Amino acid sequence: MLRVEEDAVTAVIAELTELLGEDRVLTGNDDLRLHGTDESWHPPATPDAVVLPHDTDEAARIVRACRDHKVPIVPFGAGTSLEGHVAALRGGISVDMRAMDEILRLSVPDMDVTVQAGVTRRQLDDKLRPEGVFFSVDPGADATIGGMIATGASGTTSVRYGTMRENVLSLTVVTAGGEVVKTRSRARKSSAGYDLTHLMIGSEGTLGLITEATLKLQPTPEAMTAAACAFATLESAVDCVIEVLANGIPIARIELLDDVQIDAVNRHAELDLTVAPTLFLEFHGTPAEVEAQADDVREIAAGHGGKGFQWAADESERRGLWRARHHAYDAARALRPGAQGFTTDACVPISSLAECISDTKRDLDESGLIAPIVGHVGDGNFHLAILVDPDDPEELRRAVELNERLVRRAIGLGGTCTGEHGVGYGKAGFLELELGAPALDMMRAIKRALDPENLFNPGKILP
Amino acid sequence: MLRVEEDAVTAVIAELTELLGEDRVLTGNDDLRLHGTDESWHPPATPDAVVLPHDTDEAARIVRACRDHKVPIVPFGAGTSLEGHVAALRGGISVDMRAMDEILRLSVPDMDVTVQAGVTRRQLDDKLRPEGVFFSVDPGADATIGGMIATGASGTTSVRYGTMRENVLSLTVVTAGGEVVKTRSRARKSSAGYDLTHLMIGSEGTLGLITEATLKLQPTPEAMTAAACAFATLESAVDCVIEVLANGIPIARIELLDDVQIDAVNRHAELDLTVAPTLFLEFHGTPAEVEAQADDVREIAAGHGGKGFQWAADESERRGLWRARHHAYDAARALRPGAQGFTTDACVPISSLAECISDTKRDLDESGLIAPIVGHVGDGNFHLAILVDPDDPEELRRAVELNERLVRRAIGLGGTCTGEHGVGYGKAGFLELELGAPALDMMRAIKRALDPENLFNPGKILP
Repeated sequence: MLRVEEDAVTAVIAELTELLGEDRVLTGNDDLRLHGTDESWHPPATPDAVVLPHDTDEAARIVRACRDHKVPIVPFGAGTSLEGHVAALRGGISVDMRAMDEILRLSVPDMDVTVQAGVTRRQLDDKLRPEGVFFSVDPGADATIGGMIATGASGTTSVRYGTMRENVLSLTVVTAGGEVVKTRSRARKSSAGYDLTHLMIGSEGTLGLITEATLKLQPTPEAMTAAACAFATLESAVDCVIEVLANGIPIARIELLDDVQIDAVNRHAELDLTVAPTLFLEFHGTPAEVEAQADDVREIAAGHGGKGFQWAADESERRGLWRARHHAYDAARALRPGAQGFTTDACVPISSLAECISDTKRDLDESGLIAPIVGHVGDGNFHLAILVDPDDPEELRRAVELNERLVRRAIGLGGTCTGEHGVGYGKAGFLELELGAPALDMMRAIKRALDPENLFNPGKILP
Repeated sequence: MLRVEEDAVTAVIAELTELLGEDRVLTGNDDLRLHGTDESWHPPATPDAVVLPHDTDEAARIVRACRDHKVPIVPFGAGTSLEGHVAALRGGISVDMRAMDEILRLSVPDMDVTVQAGVTRRQLDDKLRPEGVFFSVDPGADATIGGMIATGASGTTSVRYGTMRENVLSLTVVTAGGEVVKTRSRARKSSAGYDLTHLMIGSEGTLGLITEATLKLQPTPEAMTAAACAFATLESAVDCVIEVLANGIPIARIELLDDVQIDAVNRHAELDLTVAPTLFLEFHGTPAEVEAQADDVREIAAGHGGKGFQWAADESERRGLWRARHHAYDAARALRPGAQGFTTDACVPISSLAECISDTKRDLDESGLIAPIVGHVGDGNFHLAILVDPDDPEELRRAVELNERLVRRAIGLGGTCTGEHGVGYGKAGFLELELGAPALDMMRAIKRALDPENLFNPGKILP
């Protein structure tokens, strides 16, 4: 893509410096490099400047200045995305939302909270914990809420509490015209016009700049317990999950780690888990409910040959187990020091999950690559962390091809190329295969209607 | 609005008759009247013809014929909507979806089902019940699934299982260009591009014609129990609900009926409930879970002065209780034979619900009108059934003004003019007040992009 013209950049930087002061307009090389780079293997692309608004009004002024000079706007949260979302492919202004980190309003009776988009997940958790409530979506990384909305994030707890799509009540968004839109009231339900909230969730900064969000909260469960259970085969682990869900057991987390990933976790976290396909489980509820759920799941697991239901004896062991799960990616990378992780994100109907993973493991073996697998198995979503040598283009090519075959396999089984990481520019080439040309035409019509000059994060989702 | 020109109508009817045969192109006065009328007090408007497609391909041909002749298309399901949605304000073709009533695919392991849009809720329930699964959204009326999607419906079980927005995985939609769009894969989660599914949910036939839907299912609970509990005041009933939700009790239904509605229900269903603000409750789970939930709720209710937790002793009493709730509207109308029901649909954050209902009851008393109140109180949504004499325009005017004050009150409390019935042409005048001009501009831009000739249900949502 052609970078934006230098004159326009110079003019907009001058205008933004006047608006925000020099401290909040960054043009140093390190700042630019950082803001054009995410956690993926996709080549970064640096913006021309980074700006840090304090509130929605400043964000709207930034958008209007960029519009006037036809300079691209690339929103930036924590930089933890995985499909090149923050790469400034045409240059322009990276709008770093992390100075918008205020929690604006909390209502425990209404079980909702309104935050600025730069609030991070952990910061929000710290605020909520003493109030006996929590925000349920947990993608692992300490992402910003705005970034989680922009990518339609989910994670380990979505099997029970849903993804971002089920947990955002309302958004404040700056449009391409520089207007401020409130997408929805704060009521729990509304049928008042088109669902602008969901249109923005997963739009990856291409339709507007998200500046505030009202989120649904959950009451902190009275009791939480965790367990791990090993299975002889992937199929039996997945069949166990299907039966747990069919029985309506409201399991809070049910995560699959394959044998390679368990081996990595054992080394990294000094654990001693059986090296086999394993489910990590968590139960939330009253002490009686948690015990009943766990009894039911243990019985179902035994019916599928689950070996040794290893309980976390106490809160510290429970946290240890989930820390191991959350650090699965680090553990994977430690298997091959110096390697870059290439993360896949296929998601299929759960009845096809075992087939999809097994075929992928066979393909992986034939490719000669190493890739531990973790899965949000209750949602049919799994990730390979393909360990590639960043200096070996031939190896990277094999990883790219493996991923492409995986995506085609998932789509062939009724699934998607991306369960939760989003499209960015890394997955844009798969959308037509997955959704067909008429769906993409519809998306393009929406993009043109809401961002006619193509200034919001150009080159993403619909290049 | 100007009706479409007669020549265009004649031409399109000839083309559609060739396509579908005379049996499936209806032009009799009774058929036209029926298809332009819903269950609301809003004046009906008849289409010029009614057509009955059998499948998506036929639906696409109908849309293309209408497009070629610039004739409006008004989708029709069961005609149970409440804001004038099916009124053919410019005439044109009513597309009756009830001949598209096939259940196309059911997967119990994946907990999903794909249906044609004309399948009704009860028809689906009959198919699912023997399989041990159910579709959770229950708006009371035996609406079509397509209609429930188009209005963003919900109902008594949404407090636990969510509204249509949380229970649709994917849609097949005919666009204004006559193309067939599949909005999404069948995977449980996806971040693959803009959320066309949610854009269509609640779009009321104004952006496209919904022809098929893939829905999430729930396992049928092993045990269900129900109870009714009377309270001294509305405030104490609502406070009880807030505490139940704050404790994370997964209550399946929690419905409020005010004293006037209880009196109406007693007369209509020959029940003997205490005439006071009352909660109808339902619990789903294993027998042990249901008992634990009910014990917890009984204790919370007692803390708020709940008088006499009346249990449904068996399945027949449970069904009787909910039949009484589902027939609340008939019971209300029986209070004043010959009266027309004028139904309101405000929804507010639950912390403001008692205030909103109390102020509305005072306003109601001053207005001299009669209106029983029922509420999906867990969602903050409540309905007045204002009983008006259809032949008394002055009384209708008072009802219209009462509703307008209620809408302003709800919006002032952070709520919405419509929790679940949608906008149609009845609520269109309130959208700007609720969402502001920039949000409506955004909606208009989307409408223009996807339906540039304004042929899909013109005059609804954004007149």
